[in-house]
Amino acid sequence: MSATFSQWMGDIQQRTESALDRALPGADIAPTRLHDAMRYAVLGGGKRVRPLLVHAGGQLTGAAPERLDRVACAIEMIHAYSLVHDDMPCMDDDVLRRGKPTVHVEYDEATALLVGDALQTQAFLHLADGAVCDDPQRQIAMIRQLAQASGSRGMCGGQAIDLGSVGQQLTLPELEFMHIHKTGALIRASINLGVQCGRSLDEAQMASLDHVGKVIGLLFQVVDDILDAEADTATLGKTAGKDAANDKPTYVSLLGVTRARELAEEMCQEALDRLAPFGDSSQRLAELTRFIIRRQF
Amino acid sequence: MSATFSQWMGDIQQRTESALDRALPGADIAPTRLHDAMRYAVLGGGKRVRPLLVHAGGQLTGAAPERLDRVACAIEMIHAYSLVHDDMPCMDDDVLRRGKPTVHVEYDEATALLVGDALQTQAFLHLADGAVCDDPQRQIAMIRQLAQASGSRGMCGGQAIDLGSVGQQLTLPELEFMHIHKTGALIRASINLGVQCGRSLDEAQMASLDHVGKVIGLLFQVVDDILDAEADTATLGKTAGKDAANDKPTYVSLLGVTRARELAEEMCQEALDRLAPFGDSSQRLAELTRFIIRRQF
Repeated sequence: MSATFSQWMGDIQQRTESALDRALPGADIAPTRLHDAMRYAVLGGGKRVRPLLVHAGGQLTGAAPERLDRVACAIEMIHAYSLVHDDMPCMDDDVLRRGKPTVHVEYDEATALLVGDALQTQAFLHLADGAVCDDPQRQIAMIRQLAQASGSRGMCGGQAIDLGSVGQQLTLPELEFMHIHKTGALIRASINLGVQCGRSLDEAQMASLDHVGKVIGLLFQVVDDILDAEADTATLGKTAGKDAANDKPTYVSLLGVTRARELAEEMCQEALDRLAPFGDSSQRLAELTRFIIRRQF
Repeated sequence: MSATFSQWMGDIQQRTESALDRALPGADIAPTRLHDAMRYAVLGGGKRVRPLLVHAGGQLTGAAPERLDRVACAIEMIHAYSLVHDDMPCMDDDVLRRGKPTVHVEYDEATALLVGDALQTQAFLHLADGAVCDDPQRQIAMIRQLAQASGSRGMCGGQAIDLGSVGQQLTLPELEFMHIHKTGALIRASINLGVQCGRSLDEAQMASLDHVGKVIGLLFQVVDDILDAEADTATLGKTAGKDAANDKPTYVSLLGVTRARELAEEMCQEALDRLAPFGDSSQRLAELTRFIIRRQF
């Protein structure tokens, strides 16, 4: 607890990088080009927001860091696969990600397709390949939760709604529904799965933390929309302004920057209020919430 | 046991269709277009070879049909996702599958990408969403085995090797290595996972059945190569002769049709010899092996 938030964040980012390096097949193992590309897509970049949320969630139940690493790697692989596929020509057709050429640009389209496919499989393999809690039934439930959060009624469904919304005028509830699925589901699962790596909480506590996860997921997206509208490509490490260029509805296009900022502040406060009863054990999650609203990248 | 093989096969195909129908989100659930396309990709077609293998494997250990349905659906969803992605323009660029337009033709490329992604997730969700055996630790191991069979060191890795082999002159061991991964891994897993739904076998029995699965997997591919070279598109329900057109190495291109047929007979006999000690409980798997070598589609 003595480390500052920034030291803690650096530590988690570093241990996540190292855990991901071990969790992915080596680039010397056949098929080498595929494994090399999978490593390219996952390693050496990213803010590791979801692993940070897993570890912050784990603090609430005193979970072992090694278990949290396993969950964090699985979730980060799901996130990375979604970025690889999202960047492909038939989706967002983007050439830059985390300051580097996207996978289909660096390798080729067919490899990018397989990289995304194999990373998703690797996520479930990793989550089933070691203990993440004391109860195997709970581990099966956690695998199920990761699948729910990333499947057709979670992240992947959000992508599909996003596809269908290009050039559409969405209402605020429709936009929220899309984001609760597209980015929100995996962020929410990050906290929930981190929490489940440790001691059991009662149902009301679990429900409260689940709500915090939902709010942080939306907060993350509101901030993302503000950054996309305001930051430049060099700072973001990915193509800026592409929402407007792609005629995609965002919180900014719907509410304007000023109201979007206010909304973010309200969401942040709601999450902090919900975390207060958990006292010191919610320190990192509270700090992370404040960090998300302040982030510039 | 009184049903003929063809009655048994019809029964398994029918109950698989019905189990898949229940295992997939309804086309009326949002996002409706994605769910509709997922159902299009999975339902109303296919020989259901892998579900048949799951149920034949389950006969060896007296497994409950409902548990076998769950495993069969998960494996069939993995198989279906791989077909959807394999047919995309950046891979095989095929327009016909199971006698119908492929998903990216019937819908669009972005939807096909998401359909494949979401079907893979749905497979893991389904396998973690109900009991498939008595021991939760074994269920976790089964989830792990499905992931191993379908990931970068299984099916997906085989696809990557296949990609890299176009226009290459492969040796027979290299071709075998590719197919053990590309088609073999999931066929092998179908039998192994079916077996694990029932009572426990000793290690030697498990290893013997695993070997049978490996042989049947290769047999299936040899027959596939012969059919691709000889049958016509209408009979296959998918584009015939595309291996030669794509300059892909096959058992036929490497060995010629006559030797490929002999090899298939040898493999079939090896599998049957291994199954003999299991007596009556191996009836369906033995029948299925003989069916695979005789199949015309």
